[in-house]
Amino acid sequence: MSARGGIDLGGTKIEAVVVDETNNVLGTARHPTPIDGGPQAVADELTAALNEAALHAGLEPSGLLGVGVGSPGVVDPETGAVSTARNLSDWEGTFELGASLRSSLGTPVRVGNDVQVATDAEFELGAGKPYESLLGVFWGTGVGGGLILAGQPWLGRGGAAEIGHMVVKQDGARCPCGRRGCMEAYAGRAALEARARKRADKGEKTRLFKLMEERGRERLTSGVWQRALDHGDQLARELLDEAVRALGVGIASAQNLLDVEAVVIGGGMGVRFGQQFADRIAEAMMPHVFNDAHPPAVHVAALGDLGGAIGASLLVRNGSRH
Amino acid sequence: MSARGGIDLGGTKIEAVVVDETNNVLGTARHPTPIDGGPQAVADELTAALNEAALHAGLEPSGLLGVGVGSPGVVDPETGAVSTARNLSDWEGTFELGASLRSSLGTPVRVGNDVQVATDAEFELGAGKPYESLLGVFWGTGVGGGLILAGQPWLGRGGAAEIGHMVVKQDGARCPCGRRGCMEAYAGRAALEARARKRADKGEKTRLFKLMEERGRERLTSGVWQRALDHGDQLARELLDEAVRALGVGIASAQNLLDVEAVVIGGGMGVRFGQQFADRIAEAMMPHVFNDAHPPAVHVAALGDLGGAIGASLLVRNGSRH
Repeated sequence: MSARGGIDLGGTKIEAVVVDETNNVLGTARHPTPIDGGPQAVADELTAALNEAALHAGLEPSGLLGVGVGSPGVVDPETGAVSTARNLSDWEGTFELGASLRSSLGTPVRVGNDVQVATDAEFELGAGKPYESLLGVFWGTGVGGGLILAGQPWLGRGGAAEIGHMVVKQDGARCPCGRRGCMEAYAGRAALEARARKRADKGEKTRLFKLMEERGRERLTSGVWQRALDHGDQLARELLDEAVRALGVGIASAQNLLDVEAVVIGGGMGVRFGQQFADRIAEAMMPHVFNDAHPPAVHVAALGDLGGAIGASLLVRNGSRH
Repeated sequence: MSARGGIDLGGTKIEAVVVDETNNVLGTARHPTPIDGGPQAVADELTAALNEAALHAGLEPSGLLGVGVGSPGVVDPETGAVSTARNLSDWEGTFELGASLRSSLGTPVRVGNDVQVATDAEFELGAGKPYESLLGVFWGTGVGGGLILAGQPWLGRGGAAEIGHMVVKQDGARCPCGRRGCMEAYAGRAALEARARKRADKGEKTRLFKLMEERGRERLTSGVWQRALDHGDQLARELLDEAVRALGVGIASAQNLLDVEAVVIGGGMGVRFGQQFADRIAEAMMPHVFNDAHPPAVHVAALGDLGGAIGASLLVRNGSRH
């Protein structure tokens, strides 16, 4: 038996999968990420989600070859420790996530960076399959990135691919990270929500917050944004236009530096808005792509919402690559 | 005998060196780059410069192991053909530079990208020696870049490391390349000169152009800018402050994407202004470096003006790496 588990730990939800040796999905589970209780509560929920996915697959977690986890924050791939995962509850310090899960699941556990494993999944199994160099752009609550160069992940000293914090406008808008002019300040879902709130508070008309309430949400999710666009909401349209422009500028800058073959757009917003927005982003890149006779291909992540979890499961097979 | 030749073909000058097997410089020559006559005139001048450097070294060009050339434009490393070298005379098309020089010099010739070979030289012999990953920033007439990742040049599909055309300000200043908001639009020597000219024409006081005339120059060279700073010229100071800020923003963006160990600042302006400006650029990066607990080292190019030519000579030794 060589089934593997994979868990994508996100700021709002946990996706767990169990896959077979050819990466077919045998079982899945989705749990909300605990918003309090700190790292141990999160680890407990990861365990519960993986147990449920294994149950759906008709397997015991202890019978899996291993479980991979894609985590935000600073990951030590050797030990599975995770530090300063600031979008999770009380996770400023270091928590031995790998050790905790090994003990609760009874199987080997490997932890990697969430966006890098999602990029690896697109590279090996998804939209990036035809290419040897790839930039993954995960457009969700924030904007994360992952890099494949010459067929290998490029991690720098462990802090590479922070594409959301490439600057698109010197002296520009304040980013959730505290810096100014980052791409994420214009494009991240959280930043977009803050911008929408501010303008609504100033009296601009928008259905965004009403749609949020109608759908029983506490945040402007990608679904709420989509619904607002469908209703012709002017503010939603303007803010998403700005987001597309910022993504175009930032990704073009990355392209001018790296000249990769392809860009894969994933994340909650990226997957929700699909190829139509990927095409708009590609168009917004063009005025800034230096080698404009030879722009990169721009695709939507083919593995959709499960890409992160499937990518995490590759950590088991790939051993110490991360 | 294993002496090698190296030629750096710049927009304003040609530097030629002959080095021994341990890269000691045996002879040098500097010629102005022909401003008319097209590619053949440039090739003739490259030949003359290399002949002169060989003469100073007491050697015949035909006795060299080979000659490397660092060229602007799009280089085909296999054939030595150079296309669209737009800052050279009438070089919109393709010219068989390698073949032409092989014939005139009677020795094997390899052609590589000018800034990449200068980066290689700093990596192997200069300020980048202690590192395995490196971003070279060549701050001169334009702003060029070179990348070393995991000890190897990263060229992308042949168009990587265009750091000067990373965007620092969406909707920003017009760049000599025609795009908007590029780092080079604020920092390149040519762009700085255009900005200075415009403001002087509007009546702002500056000694820049007077100093240029006094020194018998037709352009605001790095030496003229230095002299103006020494005289406390307000416009020169303001424009160079802006250049430093743009370099800080653009290099920080690159760092957020790549997380390299070190940045090496070279080029005519970079070498002229030295470590004091490199330190100022490092400081200007900090508000935008995401992994700010772990910024890269920032050094001035150790090989100075000869780095490009010495790096070109490495093409011979390194064979087909470029």
